[in-house]
Amino acid sequence: MFKNLSKNLNSYLKFTDEEKTFFLSLFEYKKMKKYDHIVKAGEICRYVAYVNKGLFRYYFIAGSKEHTTRIFMEDSWASDYVSFLCHKESEVNIEALEDSELFIVNDESMQRAYDKAKIFERFGRLMAESLFIDIVSRNTNFLRKTPEERYLDMLEQTPQIFNRVSLKYIASIIGIEPESLSRIRKRTAGR
Amino acid sequence: MFKNLSKNLNSYLKFTDEEKTFFLSLFEYKKMKKYDHIVKAGEICRYVAYVNKGLFRYYFIAGSKEHTTRIFMEDSWASDYVSFLCHKESEVNIEALEDSELFIVNDESMQRAYDKAKIFERFGRLMAESLFIDIVSRNTNFLRKTPEERYLDMLEQTPQIFNRVSLKYIASIIGIEPESLSRIRKRTAGR
Repeated sequence: MFKNLSKNLNSYLKFTDEEKTFFLSLFEYKKMKKYDHIVKAGEICRYVAYVNKGLFRYYFIAGSKEHTTRIFMEDSWASDYVSFLCHKESEVNIEALEDSELFIVNDESMQRAYDKAKIFERFGRLMAESLFIDIVSRNTNFLRKTPEERYLDMLEQTPQIFNRVSLKYIASIIGIEPESLSRIRKRTAGR
Repeated sequence: MFKNLSKNLNSYLKFTDEEKTFFLSLFEYKKMKKYDHIVKAGEICRYVAYVNKGLFRYYFIAGSKEHTTRIFMEDSWASDYVSFLCHKESEVNIEALEDSELFIVNDESMQRAYDKAKIFERFGRLMAESLFIDIVSRNTNFLRKTPEERYLDMLEQTPQIFNRVSLKYIASIIGIEPESLSRIRKRTAGR
């Protein structure tokens, strides 16, 4: 049941069997239907979710416009981590784009793990560090790369999302209108 | 000597005397002259610095334009943390705007602390979490607030920087041209 999650944890750290068993016992299985939300703007995000199956998008609404900023696929961690850490209302929404399966862990359980042993503190540190590295890299890409470069990066790094995610969401992630994405796709199709 | 740093560490966690003594022993005192750099783009950021005295700006160059994005004052932590964590070349520059004093700790020393005791792992986790919270909040401010609102926030939260930092850097942090900042300052002066 925990096969993928267990493998994902190994990619961060070498847990002993006992540590792994304890940590996995903190997680809860949760099914989600397409269009269900992990969190909606205005709610507090109560858990961190490991995506065992399915697909989520992260979006927010500014003015009258909806902006999709990220996609979480299988084998990734989905959460509004700021809302989760600070127990404050989320500014974003995380929506299932397919029927999905999660393993979720709440704040109380994370604190139990942090109190129990050093390795879980290390896991929490590596998790926070990787979120920080990720957001800085996305900010940098937005400042330094053209939409076409961002599109080509996405095509190279996660080609599968083009079969599973509406182009309007992909355009939004890249930061352009859907029509501009279509033009970029035509222009670069032969490469 | 370590009075301010010691107080800053207490704001994160309650260290025992022994833990505090060990941790402080990892830091090195470093003087910097105005215009000296903690890191320059293309170099690897080798340490995290506690600003004991002075003032730094964080800037990068895109195309032919220089963008200042942050100011680090006394009692804050200055580093290109992504470059520090990943041992990769920095994309940013961190420059002293005044003669300054730092306490710096390098990666090897941080790893020694992480290996030594759980409380240092927790410190590292809280540090990374607070950096993540901070960058998300700055991203959100850029998306949701007007330049005028960002200016008024800055005036309320860190009024002292207006006496110490050139308005061209402040305008850049807010994301506008210096002339626009002047107009905003005139318009809001009476409030």
